[in-house]
Amino acid sequence: MLKDFLEFINTNQLCKTTDKVLVAASGGKDSMALLNLFVEGQFNISVAHYNFGLRGLASDEDENFVKEFSEKNRIAFYTTKSDTKKIAKEWGVSTQMAARQLRYTWFNELIVSEDFDWLATAHNLDDKIETLYLNLTKGTGPKGLKSIPLKKDKIIRPLMFAEVSEILSYLAAKNISWREDLSNQTVDYQRNKIRHQVIPTLKEINPGLANTAQVNFSRINDLNAIFDEKLERFKQSIDFGEIIKIPFLEWQSTPGFTLMIEEFLKPFGFNYQEVIDLLNATISGKIINSNTHEIVKGRNDWFLKKKWEYTEETNFHFKEPGLYEIGTQSIVLKVTTDFPSIMDIRKSEHAFFDFDAIKWPLTLRNWKHGDRFQPFGMKGKKMVSDFLIDSKIDSPQKNI
Amino acid sequence: MLKDFLEFINTNQLCKTTDKVLVAASGGKDSMALLNLFVEGQFNISVAHYNFGLRGLASDEDENFVKEFSEKNRIAFYTTKSDTKKIAKEWGVSTQMAARQLRYTWFNELIVSEDFDWLATAHNLDDKIETLYLNLTKGTGPKGLKSIPLKKDKIIRPLMFAEVSEILSYLAAKNISWREDLSNQTVDYQRNKIRHQVIPTLKEINPGLANTAQVNFSRINDLNAIFDEKLERFKQSIDFGEIIKIPFLEWQSTPGFTLMIEEFLKPFGFNYQEVIDLLNATISGKIINSNTHEIVKGRNDWFLKKKWEYTEETNFHFKEPGLYEIGTQSIVLKVTTDFPSIMDIRKSEHAFFDFDAIKWPLTLRNWKHGDRFQPFGMKGKKMVSDFLIDSKIDSPQKNI
Repeated sequence: MLKDFLEFINTNQLCKTTDKVLVAASGGKDSMALLNLFVEGQFNISVAHYNFGLRGLASDEDENFVKEFSEKNRIAFYTTKSDTKKIAKEWGVSTQMAARQLRYTWFNELIVSEDFDWLATAHNLDDKIETLYLNLTKGTGPKGLKSIPLKKDKIIRPLMFAEVSEILSYLAAKNISWREDLSNQTVDYQRNKIRHQVIPTLKEINPGLANTAQVNFSRINDLNAIFDEKLERFKQSIDFGEIIKIPFLEWQSTPGFTLMIEEFLKPFGFNYQEVIDLLNATISGKIINSNTHEIVKGRNDWFLKKKWEYTEETNFHFKEPGLYEIGTQSIVLKVTTDFPSIMDIRKSEHAFFDFDAIKWPLTLRNWKHGDRFQPFGMKGKKMVSDFLIDSKIDSPQKNI
Repeated sequence: MLKDFLEFINTNQLCKTTDKVLVAASGGKDSMALLNLFVEGQFNISVAHYNFGLRGLASDEDENFVKEFSEKNRIAFYTTKSDTKKIAKEWGVSTQMAARQLRYTWFNELIVSEDFDWLATAHNLDDKIETLYLNLTKGTGPKGLKSIPLKKDKIIRPLMFAEVSEILSYLAAKNISWREDLSNQTVDYQRNKIRHQVIPTLKEINPGLANTAQVNFSRINDLNAIFDEKLERFKQSIDFGEIIKIPFLEWQSTPGFTLMIEEFLKPFGFNYQEVIDLLNATISGKIINSNTHEIVKGRNDWFLKKKWEYTEETNFHFKEPGLYEIGTQSIVLKVTTDFPSIMDIRKSEHAFFDFDAIKWPLTLRNWKHGDRFQPFGMKGKKMVSDFLIDSKIDSPQKNI
C-alpha cells in the first residue's frame, strides 16, 4: 500500500516529502489510513480536526482520538469546535452545508496563517466513483465527469487510488484503529442510494469496476484537458471591455461550440437551456437575462453586460449573520470573537468589520462617489474610490 | 409525439421526407411506434423484418404481424428467415452475436441492392441511457460515453428522443398494437441488471433522469467533437509509409495526448495498458507488440509496423464456415444458395467463391508473386499482383 501511495503521489505530482501538508482528519478509516501512510512515508504533515459537536460526547471522543494519534506520532495538531446545528439554523442552511462551509473556511484560515503548501483530504476511489454516478444522475458537464479532482488549488487527495477494501486491509495489517463515523451512514440519502444499491449491482456486472473506473477517469481527464485547451483559445478571442464582446460568428461552427459557450457563460448565471435558446434564436437583437447579466445577440457578436444598476431596488439587505446567495456569488456573514490575523485581513475575499460599529440590517450596494470607510489600523477615513484605484481593480469589476 | 419526432429529425438532420428509408422492424413496441410516426409524417419508407426463427410459431406470427401493418399502410415489405441457432452453432458464436451479424449483413445487402439512403432502427432514449451505464461499467472511451450514436454511416435512430413511457402512450393514443418480444426480457443479463435494478434507483434520486441524460449527452457529443477535431490534426502529422512514423516528441506534452495515442493505436490491436507502458518507458528502443503490429519507441518518433510475415506459421486455416477473429479483423465465412447481386460482388469487403471449386480447410495467407485467380465473368485467370495494381491498393495495405 505504501508503495502504491508513494507512486500515486509521484505520478500525479501531488506533493513532495518536504512540503508542509495539512491533513484533514475526522478519525474515520480513510483519514486514519491517510495519516499513517504520510507517517510511514515521512512526510512533513500537521493534522486538522474539526469538531462539529453533532454527536455529543462521541464528537469529543473523535477529537481526542485524532489528538492522541497525532501526539503519539509527534504531529502538530489543530482543532476547533462549533455548535454546528445552531449555526446552520442561524444561517438558514442544512447542517451538512454549514459543516462544509465551516470546515473549509477554517482550513483556509490555517493554510494562510500557518503557511501550508497543501491541504490533504482522505477521499478514496469509491467516493470518486460514487460521485461520478451522482453527477451523471443529477446532470453534469466535463468537470462533473472528472468527478472529485485529484488536485485543485491547494487541495490534494493522495488516497484517491485506493478502494475502501484496500484501506480496511491496510488498517488491519498496520493495526491502526479508527472511529466509525455514524453520521456518514445516515446523512447523505442520495450518495447512500448509489453506494448501497447501484454500485453493488454494477460490480455484479464487472467485479473489477474500480480498476475500470480508473482507466475511464484517466480518459475523461484527457477529454477535459483537450476541452480546456480549446476553451482557453476561445476566451482569448473575447474582448473583455465594460461590455464583453463574444465573437459568435467566428466560433459558431467550430466543433463543440455549444459546450464551450455554455461553460463560458455559466459564471454569469446562464444555464444550458438559455444558451440553447440563444443559439437557436434567428432574430438578431434577441436578449436573454440571468439574475445579474444580459446578453444581446448581434449579427456577428454577442454582447454580455452586467444588469446591476445604481438603483435602490437592486440593493441587498442582510438581516442577520448567515449564508446568502446573490446571483452566482455566495456571501457568508459570520460573527467571530477571535481577532483576525493579518493574513486573513489581507485576503481580498474576506472583509472584517467592527461588530459594535455596524447596524442591522446591513445593506450591500454599489459604491457611490463620496463613500468613505476607516481602514484597519488607520486613524482617518479613506475614499472608496481611492481604495479601488490603489487596489488596481479593473473597471468592469468595480461594481461587482 | 409526431411534432417532437419531426423536430428531432430536423434538428439532427437525420433524413428528409423524400429520402428512401429502410426501417428495421421486429414488431415490438419501439419499431411499431417508429413505423407509425414515419407513416404519419409521410416519409418514403420500406420495412425490413428479420425472422430469426428463435421462438417457433411466435416468430412467424411476428413476421405476419409486421407484414400486415406494411400492407395495410402500403409500405414495401422485405423479410428473410434463418435457422439462427443452427448458424450460431456452425459459427461457434452466441445466438445473439449470430443474430446481430445476420441482421446487419442482410440490411447492408438490402441497402446496396435497393439503393436505400438510410437504415432506421427504433432504439429509444432508455436504450441509450442504459448503454451509457453499461459502457461505463465495462470500461469506455469517448465514443462509449456518447453511447448509441444518433447517426452512423447509413444508420439513423429517429426515436432516440423518446422514453419507453412516451412510446407506450403514443401507441395507446393511436391504437397501434405490437408484439411483445419475450426474448428481450431474458437474453441480455447485463442490460437487464441496468434496466431493472440501476435505473429505477437513479430515478428515485432524479425523476427527470431522461431529460437530464439528454443534456448530458449533448455535452458529451461536444466533448467528442472537440476530441475528434484534435485527433484529426494529430493524424495529419503522422507519416503513413510502409512503416508508420508517429511524431511522438512533437505531441507528447499536448493536453490529452494519452487518449489520442490510445485511440489512434486501438485499430492496430493495442490496448490502454500497453500504451501507458510505452509512454512510461524511458529506454529508447523499447518495443511493444500487438497480435498484428509492433511499435518501436525512438527518441523523437514511434515506428509502427505490421508483424505479419511471409511464413507458413502466420497463415490462418478455416476448417468450416463461421465467424473468425484475426488480429483486429473479423471474417465471416458463410454458405449461401442465393446468387449474389452485382452490387454485392462490387463491395470490397465481400468476396464470393464457387463452393464446388474450394477445398477445406481454406487457408488465409499473404499473396505471393505468381498467384492467380479467375474473376467473376472472366474466362481466363488474372494475376493477383495485377488485380492489386488495378484496384489501386496502397502498398502498406497490400498484405492486410
